[in-house]
Amino acid sequence: MRVGVIGGGQLARMMVPAAIELGIEIAVLGESADAAARIAVTAVGDHRDPAAVLAFARGVDVVTFDHEHVPQPVLRALVDAGVVVRPGPAALLHAQDKLVLRQRLDGLGIAQPEWAAVHDADELAAFLRRMGGPVVVKTPTGGYDGRGVRVVSAPHDADDWLADGPLLAEELVRFRRELAQLVARRPSGEVAMWPLVETVQGDGVCREVLAPAPRTSAVTARVAREVAHRIAEALETTGVLAVELFETIDDRVLVNELAMRPHNSGHWTIEGAVTSQFEQHLRAVLDLPLGSTEARAPWSAMVNVLGGPADGDLDALVPLLMADQPTAKLHLYGKTPRPGRKIGHVTAVGDDLDDAVFVARAGAAFLSG
Amino acid sequence: MRVGVIGGGQLARMMVPAAIELGIEIAVLGESADAAARIAVTAVGDHRDPAAVLAFARGVDVVTFDHEHVPQPVLRALVDAGVVVRPGPAALLHAQDKLVLRQRLDGLGIAQPEWAAVHDADELAAFLRRMGGPVVVKTPTGGYDGRGVRVVSAPHDADDWLADGPLLAEELVRFRRELAQLVARRPSGEVAMWPLVETVQGDGVCREVLAPAPRTSAVTARVAREVAHRIAEALETTGVLAVELFETIDDRVLVNELAMRPHNSGHWTIEGAVTSQFEQHLRAVLDLPLGSTEARAPWSAMVNVLGGPADGDLDALVPLLMADQPTAKLHLYGKTPRPGRKIGHVTAVGDDLDDAVFVARAGAAFLSG
Repeated sequence: MRVGVIGGGQLARMMVPAAIELGIEIAVLGESADAAARIAVTAVGDHRDPAAVLAFARGVDVVTFDHEHVPQPVLRALVDAGVVVRPGPAALLHAQDKLVLRQRLDGLGIAQPEWAAVHDADELAAFLRRMGGPVVVKTPTGGYDGRGVRVVSAPHDADDWLADGPLLAEELVRFRRELAQLVARRPSGEVAMWPLVETVQGDGVCREVLAPAPRTSAVTARVAREVAHRIAEALETTGVLAVELFETIDDRVLVNELAMRPHNSGHWTIEGAVTSQFEQHLRAVLDLPLGSTEARAPWSAMVNVLGGPADGDLDALVPLLMADQPTAKLHLYGKTPRPGRKIGHVTAVGDDLDDAVFVARAGAAFLSG
Repeated sequence: MRVGVIGGGQLARMMVPAAIELGIEIAVLGESADAAARIAVTAVGDHRDPAAVLAFARGVDVVTFDHEHVPQPVLRALVDAGVVVRPGPAALLHAQDKLVLRQRLDGLGIAQPEWAAVHDADELAAFLRRMGGPVVVKTPTGGYDGRGVRVVSAPHDADDWLADGPLLAEELVRFRRELAQLVARRPSGEVAMWPLVETVQGDGVCREVLAPAPRTSAVTARVAREVAHRIAEALETTGVLAVELFETIDDRVLVNELAMRPHNSGHWTIEGAVTSQFEQHLRAVLDLPLGSTEARAPWSAMVNVLGGPADGDLDALVPLLMADQPTAKLHLYGKTPRPGRKIGHVTAVGDDLDDAVFVARAGAAFLSG
């Protein structure tokens, strides 16, 4: 069994341990030989280059992804060449184009923020009037970690982006917190879901994840599961799907975005669940039976390491973290520290949520320099 | 931080996931490009070839091992060339030469089987008389997994081996069961020990490991810890040390053998302990603070996969295992099935020992074909 991953970031990197343990051969098409997943990089090339991607795909049984940026024409060329692509192009489109996603979710009757496709300042003005206050505009494609997202309050606030094409305008949702429901689906239809988690964001970037989401009502947990299940089945996703959700101040659960790959909201599963999202993704794209998604501890806390020390010398900080927090589980992505960059994460699990959060935060704080 | 591992077997293979998560670069000197640890093989060469080993060592910060078979002259050449070798040659000698080990343990006053170095049939006859019945003879070097071990009852039963040099003759210990105490030590002196485990052998090969060792008296647990601690300190081991023990029918704890590397008796720690033996070995040889060795569940059971299906087609069996045992943790070593060969293992953890054993055994049974 040989899996090929397009993209060599930390998600591909974290698939490698799971592949090694399961006896699965893994190959990565990296942006560079020095990519985070470099130990498994067998080819260096641009994921937008059909020739590079096709050549890479020839040596593997199934192609999957570290990110959603492979253009549809390249995906279609793979399928036309007989390559098994999971998730497939039709599913992936919903993670690539936010306008397509919004339309599809409306069609499925799944609760989401009010939205409109806006082509010019007039349409934005109309949406602003309809909402009666500031709204969010998003570039339909290419944005992540807060990029391509802006809050606007006047019709001409998005003129620069509108020059490049239509935008997604959304209601500025008044939410209590953000949640994420991770689900895995294999082509034969089996679906498995981990516990619902709370994701804590800052500056549009995920900072912390608490699993399971504390103080969650039974209704919210059930709705999140139903929504994720329905999306996975309707879109026929394969592999891991992350459904990012808003929990509103009036207790509704609205779909924010989708990611069709292992996701930051699931890093806690490496230690916190019987089957990690990385192992599950490999099982799912190979159409192998899914593993148990049961939690291994009452609570798990994951804290991202963003940026890192100004002098770039992580090696000097790692011993401090290890000496201070012998139960913290450190994950470094082999990336050069840079302000705001996700260079690793720390997970702690246990019987007490506050303790787990304390250990994971302390660990991450050491590395932030 | 860059660790070089000499030998590309499953122990090196299982160090790779730990290295990836910790952000440690790992390189392996493999016997072949197709070694179990192939994903990290950066050089192919013979571990007995000083030039190959020295060339490999030049690119790493510390050299450690997948096995104990690197000859002392090669180890000394590394040290002379300024390479950091952990564990060092002086410590490793005790895992390489059973006669040296027996002498040293006597010197330390640590309980072990009665023994003698025998150079010829007359000396073996004398030891047989002294023991009053059959004894065990072992080649001092090179044996593992039951090889180089023989029970003899007459003076000339070992003539073939005696032609190659002196042998270790040992009392045939009447033991209730075998135990193993895993300990990690870093050069600065810090020591960490996992819970004592029971190892179940068959035909001289480890079949199952139960952690912690069930029905263990407080005295036995304490003695095992003290013995392991004393050996680690006296021999100044670095990295993981496995102390294999006999629990005799009169409740003594005798040292059988040592392994100075991650060991089959510690595979359960991947899921069963906060810090796995593979992560700990990397921490220890890099002189990083050691991680918590606490168990993550009341019970862990590990069952080896020996041999595999007659047709060699493991890929056909893996889905059966996964479908039947969604909580079993599968570890395959990327090795071609061959009768008696260790090609993987299955671990299960939980609140009930019988359940964990059942799941791990069931999982392993699927793969044995």
